[in-house]
Amino acid sequence: MEKQDQILMKKQNKTYVLELIKNMAPISRMQISKNTKMSPTSITRIVGELQEQGFVKETKLVTSGVGRKATLLDVCGDVLFTIGVELDKAVLKIGIVNYVGGMIDLQTYVRNPLESYEETVQNINDKVKNIIEQNAIPVGKIIGLAVGLPGSIDYENGIVRVAEQLRWKDVHLVRDLSKLTSLNVVIDNELKMKIIAENTVGKAKDSKSSILVGIGSGIGSAILLNGEVHRGESNNAGEIGHTVIDPNGNVCSCGKFGCLCTYISEGAILADAKKMKDISSIDEVFVAFRDGESWALNILDRTATYIALAISNLACLYEPECIILSGNLIDKMPEMKQQIEEKCERYMWEPIKKNLHIVHSSLGSQGVVLGAAIQAQNSLFDIN
Amino acid sequence: MEKQDQILMKKQNKTYVLELIKNMAPISRMQISKNTKMSPTSITRIVGELQEQGFVKETKLVTSGVGRKATLLDVCGDVLFTIGVELDKAVLKIGIVNYVGGMIDLQTYVRNPLESYEETVQNINDKVKNIIEQNAIPVGKIIGLAVGLPGSIDYENGIVRVAEQLRWKDVHLVRDLSKLTSLNVVIDNELKMKIIAENTVGKAKDSKSSILVGIGSGIGSAILLNGEVHRGESNNAGEIGHTVIDPNGNVCSCGKFGCLCTYISEGAILADAKKMKDISSIDEVFVAFRDGESWALNILDRTATYIALAISNLACLYEPECIILSGNLIDKMPEMKQQIEEKCERYMWEPIKKNLHIVHSSLGSQGVVLGAAIQAQNSLFDIN
Repeated sequence: MEKQDQILMKKQNKTYVLELIKNMAPISRMQISKNTKMSPTSITRIVGELQEQGFVKETKLVTSGVGRKATLLDVCGDVLFTIGVELDKAVLKIGIVNYVGGMIDLQTYVRNPLESYEETVQNINDKVKNIIEQNAIPVGKIIGLAVGLPGSIDYENGIVRVAEQLRWKDVHLVRDLSKLTSLNVVIDNELKMKIIAENTVGKAKDSKSSILVGIGSGIGSAILLNGEVHRGESNNAGEIGHTVIDPNGNVCSCGKFGCLCTYISEGAILADAKKMKDISSIDEVFVAFRDGESWALNILDRTATYIALAISNLACLYEPECIILSGNLIDKMPEMKQQIEEKCERYMWEPIKKNLHIVHSSLGSQGVVLGAAIQAQNSLFDIN
Repeated sequence: MEKQDQILMKKQNKTYVLELIKNMAPISRMQISKNTKMSPTSITRIVGELQEQGFVKETKLVTSGVGRKATLLDVCGDVLFTIGVELDKAVLKIGIVNYVGGMIDLQTYVRNPLESYEETVQNINDKVKNIIEQNAIPVGKIIGLAVGLPGSIDYENGIVRVAEQLRWKDVHLVRDLSKLTSLNVVIDNELKMKIIAENTVGKAKDSKSSILVGIGSGIGSAILLNGEVHRGESNNAGEIGHTVIDPNGNVCSCGKFGCLCTYISEGAILADAKKMKDISSIDEVFVAFRDGESWALNILDRTATYIALAISNLACLYEPECIILSGNLIDKMPEMKQQIEEKCERYMWEPIKKNLHIVHSSLGSQGVVLGAAIQAQNSLFDIN
C-alpha cells in the first residue's frame, strides 16, 4: 500500500472510531473493537491518540456483567465549538454549540430591517466576538461559523443570490464575514440548516425522507431524501413560497398571481388585518383571534386552509414519510396546529394520507442556529 | 476467497463486460481490457462465453489506426426480448422490444372503457400471444412482460392499489397476468415507466434530475433524481393531478376543490366544451381551436395556463435540470407547445428559470410501452 493511502486509511479509521464513541457512548474499548471489527491493539492505539488530542475521555463507569471490568469511554463535548447564526429581517440570533450538539449559549437581538449589508456583517462580527468572550471559549477551539438566512443561496461559492427579506442580491457573505471574523464560514438557506438540526437531534432523526415546512416572516420548505438535503440545480428546491395556489389570486413580488407566500406570511396576514383594524404587529392579530373577533378568526382560518393545501401539495409531489411544521406562526399560535391537522385530514389525497406523519418541530426558536452550527461542524471538522 | 464469492464475482465481471459492449459497441477486446482494467486473458475468456451464449458477436469491422488490426465486437439485439404493455382507459398497446431497446413491433387496440378487470387481463394475454406468434419470437427468448398503467401502483407486490380511469381497486395484476401468460410480470405507474424510456434512450438520457409531465386522459408526473425514479413512501410521488391549484375551484373526485386534474385532462376539457357545443370528442375541440372559435381558444388558453403553472410549481419544489412534456394533449396539439413555453417564461420564478430546460418528449406514443419493456429487462434479466 502507498504511504498516502496508509495515512488516509489511518485517518478514516480514527474518524470512524470517534463517530462510534460519539453515537454509542458510554462504550468500552472491547465493544468498539467488536463493532468496528478492528483489533483490540488498534483500538487501544487509536483511543490513546484521541485521548491525547482531547476528543475522548475515560468515564467513571465500567462495563456491567461478568468478567473483568472495563472502563467506559465518552467524547469530550468541549473539545471544539462552532458558532451558529440565524439572520432574518428583524432578528439576529447567535449561538455557540459544542462537539456533541449542546447549545452553550444563545443570544437574540432585534435587527433593524433597514440596516445595510455592511452594517449587518459588522454587527454579526461584533456579536460573535461578544459571545465568544462572554463564554470564555478559547478561539483555537472554534472551528468555524455558519449562517442560515432566508433566500436563494449559492452555498458552494458562499454567495447570497437573492434574499428578498434582507433586500440583498449577489453579496459575498462568506468572503466578507470570514475576513472580518477570521473564522471559516459556511452559509445556507435557513430551512436547509434547520432540517439538518431536525435530522441530527430532532423529529427527522434517522428519517429517510422528511420535509420541513417553515412559516414565519415567509413560507418555505427544506427536503431530506435518503438522509441528504435535496438541493436542486442551484439550491432552490423546496421554494414552496412561489408555488401558485390561486391563479387569480394576490399579485406577488415575483410577478405572478396567487403565490403561496402572498397568503401565508406574517406580512400578508398583517396587511389583511390592517384593512379591518388599526394594528401594527402580528401579535395583535393573535390577541384578536383569542378574543374571538370574527375578522381574525376568518383570516387565520384562511391561513390554516392554505397551509394545509401547501402540505397536501408537498405530500402529493414528494410523498415523504414525515412533514415537520415549524416557525414563528406555529410557535406563537399553537391553536393553529389543530386547525391545520383537521384541514390536512380533509384535504390529503387518500392513497398518500395513510403513510404520512405530520408533526411539529420540538427545536423551537433555536432550530436554525443549532442546524447551522451542526452544519459548520459537518463541513469544517477534519481530524488529524 | 469462498467459492460462493468467486461465482458472484465472475458473474459481476461478465455483466460489467456485457454492459460495456452494449454501451460502447463496436469495441475491441483490447479496449474492453483497458476500460475494465481486467487482463486481456480474462476478457478473451469472458467474451468467448458471451459469444457462446449468444449475447455478443464479432462484426466485420476492425480497429483503425496503426498496429495489428483487431476485430470489433457488438451485442446481438435478438438474443432476448421483453414485452411492454400500456394500458389506459380507452387504449391497449403492446410492443416487443429487443435487448438493445429496439421496438420490433407495436400494436394498438381500442379498449372498451366498460371492460371488466378479468376481461382486460384476458385481452392482454390474447394480444400478447398474438404479437409473439406474428413476429415468430421463440418463447424461450422472452424474459418477461411489464405493464404501465395510470394510478397508484404497489410495484413491489404487483398490486394496483387505485386506478380511477380503469375503475380498479386492489387488484393483483402481476399474479393474475403471470398465471395466464406464464411470463414473469412487472407493473408500475405509466409515467414511471415512461421516464425510464426517457432516461435510457430519450430526453433524460444521462440526466441527473428530470421530471416527466404527462398530459392526456389525466395529468401526472414522474421524477428522476440521481438517475433513479423517486417513488416516495408508497410509489405515489409525482401525483401532481391532485395538487390544488385553486382552492375555490372545481370539485374533484378526491373530495377537494380545485385539483389540477379537474382542469387539465381530456375529460375536463371536453366537459367544458360541451357547455358550448354538442361535440363528443376532444378532437372536435382541436378542430374548433384551429378554426379560431373563441370558446375553444379560451378553453385551451386556460389549459395552457394551468399546465404552465403546474410546471412552475414542480420546478419550485424540485428544481430539476429538465422538465419533459409528453402525452396525447401535447402530441395532438403541437400549437400548445408555444403557448405553454410563453406562459412558463412569464410564470417561472426568476432564480429557477435560468437553470431549467423545458423540452418535449421525442418518444411519441410509444414511450410507455418502450419504458415498460426496458424496465422488464432491468428487473428480470440476469446472466448466468
